[in-house]
Amino acid sequence: MQKLENFILGRWIPGSGDGQVLYDAVTGEAFARASTAGLDFHEVLVYARAVGNPALRRMTFHERGRMLKALALHLSAQKEKFYTLSYRTGATRADSWIDIEGGIGNLFSYASLRRKFPDEAYCLDGEAHILGKGGSFAAQHLLVPKEGTAIHINAFNFPVWGMLEKIAVNLLAGVPAVVKPATLTAYLTEAVVREIVASGILPDGALQLICGSAGDLLNYVGSQDVVTFTGSAATGLTLKTHPAILRENVPFTMEADSLNSIVLGEDVDPGMPEWDLFIKEIRREMTAKAGQKCTAIRRIFVPEGRLEAAREALSKALAQTVVGNPAHEKVRMGSLAGQVQREEVRSRVRELLADSRLIYGSLDDAPEVLDADGVKGAFLSPLLLLNEKPLAAEAVHSVEAFGPVSTLMPYRSLEEAVLLTKKGRGSLVCSLVTARPSLAREFVLGAATHHGRILVLNAACARESTGHGSPLPLLVHGGPGRAGGGEEMGGVRGVKHYMQRVAVQGDPTTLTAITGVYQPGGAQTTGDVHPFRKYFEELRIGDTVITHKRTVTAADIVNFANVSWDHFYAHTDHTSLEGTPFEHPVAHGYFVLSAAAGLFVDPGKGPVLLNYGLDECRFLKPVYAGTTIGVRLTVKEKIRQELKDDQDIPKGIVRWLVDVYDETGESVAVATILTMVRCREA
Amino acid sequence: MQKLENFILGRWIPGSGDGQVLYDAVTGEAFARASTAGLDFHEVLVYARAVGNPALRRMTFHERGRMLKALALHLSAQKEKFYTLSYRTGATRADSWIDIEGGIGNLFSYASLRRKFPDEAYCLDGEAHILGKGGSFAAQHLLVPKEGTAIHINAFNFPVWGMLEKIAVNLLAGVPAVVKPATLTAYLTEAVVREIVASGILPDGALQLICGSAGDLLNYVGSQDVVTFTGSAATGLTLKTHPAILRENVPFTMEADSLNSIVLGEDVDPGMPEWDLFIKEIRREMTAKAGQKCTAIRRIFVPEGRLEAAREALSKALAQTVVGNPAHEKVRMGSLAGQVQREEVRSRVRELLADSRLIYGSLDDAPEVLDADGVKGAFLSPLLLLNEKPLAAEAVHSVEAFGPVSTLMPYRSLEEAVLLTKKGRGSLVCSLVTARPSLAREFVLGAATHHGRILVLNAACARESTGHGSPLPLLVHGGPGRAGGGEEMGGVRGVKHYMQRVAVQGDPTTLTAITGVYQPGGAQTTGDVHPFRKYFEELRIGDTVITHKRTVTAADIVNFANVSWDHFYAHTDHTSLEGTPFEHPVAHGYFVLSAAAGLFVDPGKGPVLLNYGLDECRFLKPVYAGTTIGVRLTVKEKIRQELKDDQDIPKGIVRWLVDVYDETGESVAVATILTMVRCREA
Repeated sequence: MQKLENFILGRWIPGSGDGQVLYDAVTGEAFARASTAGLDFHEVLVYARAVGNPALRRMTFHERGRMLKALALHLSAQKEKFYTLSYRTGATRADSWIDIEGGIGNLFSYASLRRKFPDEAYCLDGEAHILGKGGSFAAQHLLVPKEGTAIHINAFNFPVWGMLEKIAVNLLAGVPAVVKPATLTAYLTEAVVREIVASGILPDGALQLICGSAGDLLNYVGSQDVVTFTGSAATGLTLKTHPAILRENVPFTMEADSLNSIVLGEDVDPGMPEWDLFIKEIRREMTAKAGQKCTAIRRIFVPEGRLEAAREALSKALAQTVVGNPAHEKVRMGSLAGQVQREEVRSRVRELLADSRLIYGSLDDAPEVLDADGVKGAFLSPLLLLNEKPLAAEAVHSVEAFGPVSTLMPYRSLEEAVLLTKKGRGSLVCSLVTARPSLAREFVLGAATHHGRILVLNAACARESTGHGSPLPLLVHGGPGRAGGGEEMGGVRGVKHYMQRVAVQGDPTTLTAITGVYQPGGAQTTGDVHPFRKYFEELRIGDTVITHKRTVTAADIVNFANVSWDHFYAHTDHTSLEGTPFEHPVAHGYFVLSAAAGLFVDPGKGPVLLNYGLDECRFLKPVYAGTTIGVRLTVKEKIRQELKDDQDIPKGIVRWLVDVYDETGESVAVATILTMVRCREA
Repeated sequence: MQKLENFILGRWIPGSGDGQVLYDAVTGEAFARASTAGLDFHEVLVYARAVGNPALRRMTFHERGRMLKALALHLSAQKEKFYTLSYRTGATRADSWIDIEGGIGNLFSYASLRRKFPDEAYCLDGEAHILGKGGSFAAQHLLVPKEGTAIHINAFNFPVWGMLEKIAVNLLAGVPAVVKPATLTAYLTEAVVREIVASGILPDGALQLICGSAGDLLNYVGSQDVVTFTGSAATGLTLKTHPAILRENVPFTMEADSLNSIVLGEDVDPGMPEWDLFIKEIRREMTAKAGQKCTAIRRIFVPEGRLEAAREALSKALAQTVVGNPAHEKVRMGSLAGQVQREEVRSRVRELLADSRLIYGSLDDAPEVLDADGVKGAFLSPLLLLNEKPLAAEAVHSVEAFGPVSTLMPYRSLEEAVLLTKKGRGSLVCSLVTARPSLAREFVLGAATHHGRILVLNAACARESTGHGSPLPLLVHGGPGRAGGGEEMGGVRGVKHYMQRVAVQGDPTTLTAITGVYQPGGAQTTGDVHPFRKYFEELRIGDTVITHKRTVTAADIVNFANVSWDHFYAHTDHTSLEGTPFEHPVAHGYFVLSAAAGLFVDPGKGPVLLNYGLDECRFLKPVYAGTTIGVRLTVKEKIRQELKDDQDIPKGIVRWLVDVYDETGESVAVATILTMVRCREA
């Protein structure tokens, strides 16, 4: 029998002893063992911190992102192996797509997120704060990678996605990972890690894998580590109360199964496309992964007048679900992950039956299955329950049957529907099906406190909707209360979980040196060479040109109105200024910007390729005819661009601070402009 | 003897029984009692959630901010009462300034932060995400006030600031507070709450006060509540392991005393202004509040060659500290908060003496005091210790004596100094004194992982520096590991701790209705009336004008170069375009923007007052002579402005999405422009 191995300290090591037996969920065959006995978990963490962490934290966000992209491409090329193995978990090919390609998709998404970060090992967080009136004391928050490791304790239902959605984030942050998948399906995680290791794409120590018990691993966590957990609320509670986690104030992110719900809007009648979307979404959520998803719909709320119609339509839809061998092309729902899971689901359903009744499916009989053994395989039919008094019910809002199980319930008003969704005491996700935006607004603002994500489904978005059950890399995944109180992913938000935020205070010139970004009030360096004549590498943060000046005339205002066709009264009609902030016709804001460019641009051909854009421009003071303006242009930030191909011109984006001031020295306009500047060398 | 009262359920209620005796720290006189016996803490939380929460969450951020401003002004007018009472805590007037005016300053700061939020009860978080290629499925994160209450368990050292710095944040977020100050100095907190209640500024249930034991309060916390704690790591551990906090996944923010440090840069010699700053900062941190500050400097690191000079200078500086009656004008350091605290500090110093020695002050003798009784009052002299082998030492990096106590230590290299600061295993703050920006950069990037805040002190910022020990409302206060692992304040960041983040998915039109901000791809409404003719109230999100068009000519490019004086080669010199992205002389980006305004502006006098600025402008495609452009201008967001005075014009800022497209329908430039628009009514 195959024995899974652990990948620790840079080597594949089997645990000693027999370990735990793993079964094929479809055939019931025992086919592998997993053990971590004899492993030194303290050494695992020491290795991650001493070898993996320094290698990753030295890399820039862009380097880490390109590493993730390479990893995603590599795993994509190997994916058929994973699909084959995934059938053993009971998953159909469609189920495995969520796990395998969903996980790889996460790597691609986080790879792309590198563009939201600088090409540095750290990044700035939020804006600069000037703390003293004289401008000599300021602050800027920085984020730096933590010096520890991420420790991910994952659930059995997504052996691939569960690992990749998490490591994508910590690796982009510059922190290594120790992954402990649920033992039940660890063989699939192990297969993916074998490909990752074989690729040589990650630096040593960036990823370690534990197949089996986590032993005393948590005894050795420290305050620079981050522990995440996905799974049941009960196990989560055990983990978060571990003495070392508490004592060391280790950040702990929990994502627990929750009593997610779907609500049918009062506006939706059978016959509307939204009615069909509602039925289809529930069927999909009940049967995908045989309902073994932390986001699956457990509670279905419909207006009381639609209860019977919903019951009929759902029963009809569920009846089309062919259960059986997940590898068979006609099968729509495979098995649960094992016999233990099936028994667990059955006993939870029995608890639910305390105040609900079964209206579709059979709890105890083996279901009719295609091309499989309904007794040896962990099969279960979809089970739809009905609870007619959900306001008074308890079990339906607190007991989760982690299988193809959901309960239909009526509601009397939108307010009551909001209240019912909240009775789950915190959920990962809730869906509302409605065609009416105003109804959606009222529902969402009411239910938001208790959910990490709310999907509003209608005919307009249905074709592109990713569905109720899909956490997305750019959106937070997690929810308050029962759902664990954590947040994962969420684009750049997730990356910050693995970084330490520090507020740095000092004089602006020192802060500029520390942050690598020009801080307001910092030293400005003027020189003999105009900065437009310098290549990207040659520009220094703080390089400044102070221009010659220009007296704005009435003719300029008229000429600008002529060329722009902008004859707005404030610029052109001195009889209409009463009650406005202007005493005279005022120069166009865009004229002030354009004239600033006319002053600061060095016109001859040089390294500056183009004007890329403009951010945070504010017009601070009216410019009238007779006003004389000058400009201070300062290099604020430099962002090197990646080469698209061999032919691409090596270049970067330079952000410049533009300060246009008048003859009194007061600023009349400020802006940040972006230019594209050629590099001297590739 | 005065008995403090609790303010709960909208009433002042004394606890039953004798309760705890409170002493004057300076005279030792027992002068008050505090009891919470007989209080129903479950009711306290129910009241906060049922009465305070709905009242606050209905208010907009702007309303809550103005409420904070009114409260700050009211307390400012009453501040002398608080100063008088504050002497009893052992604080000098300068110490009390930190507590009282620091606390009120926090209210003012958070009041001003309302401008960073919309005039709504909720706000958007981060950018819109288009999730489908066709643009029909998108997402936006929202933040809504949690439905529970903040529960603040505070330290004895800042009875005023400790409350105000926290409630400023939760009140701006729209969440009520239950404050439990340390009983020792609760009389001062009670006095402030009496003024708050008397003012009638806060809605009912927005603030409750518990003077004495918190009893079984935490048994009743739920997942919509937030618990914060400031104090010792040991007490924090007890609180965060409370079963209800763990079970309900209640967010818990801890700010624990830590072993903060200061480092003297290798570049600083005696005689440099930075040397004097270093000595002065340490003296201030050791003696302010008699060293009873969670941010106080406990560890002092100097280059080994400067050890003797630092010892001499520090001893000389400390010798100038007059200890005694805090109300006496010559006194520079008052007493500790009580006899128990003095004994606690002494026993911690004895632990420190295991591997350090005392080089200034006397541990056991009563110090020489001015105008007070050195035995009855909780006085202690400043105590400076020396540890010559800090790399090997343990106690100095882990034992905190919460009084006027600090330890001087040598280091051999910058790398070693970074390592030594980290031996505190997570601190709130660290200061570096250096005149050299490159040294500051190396230190800060190295030490950042272990600190919530780092101050770089030099002659350039010294005059305006707020000092090592001062947490500021716009900066995060907190630190990893030993410092508790929490974050408080930090400007808008802190507000988010009291709000639930939810990712909302749907079609862009529905998302626009939910968020109140135009979402890319949402429905655009054109009508008979140009939006420039509508008053602020009349404009609807999504209102759009689709303009007539304009064919850009070579003459336009020349004329624009003439009026702007911008003769950049890409616009004016067709012989220099090789190797650039341009095939022909390209129109100026600012011309495209200006011509767009020429198309979308309705020129006659109307509600639009002025062009306020421009955000996120990007030039996407070259515009050559012969290109024909048109513009789609859409109302994206409306922000009502507060009236400055009776004379002020009622108005708001309108953010418009500008989309400039060419004859192929492709966008050539996009931007968000800001105009100021008059209201029809005040």
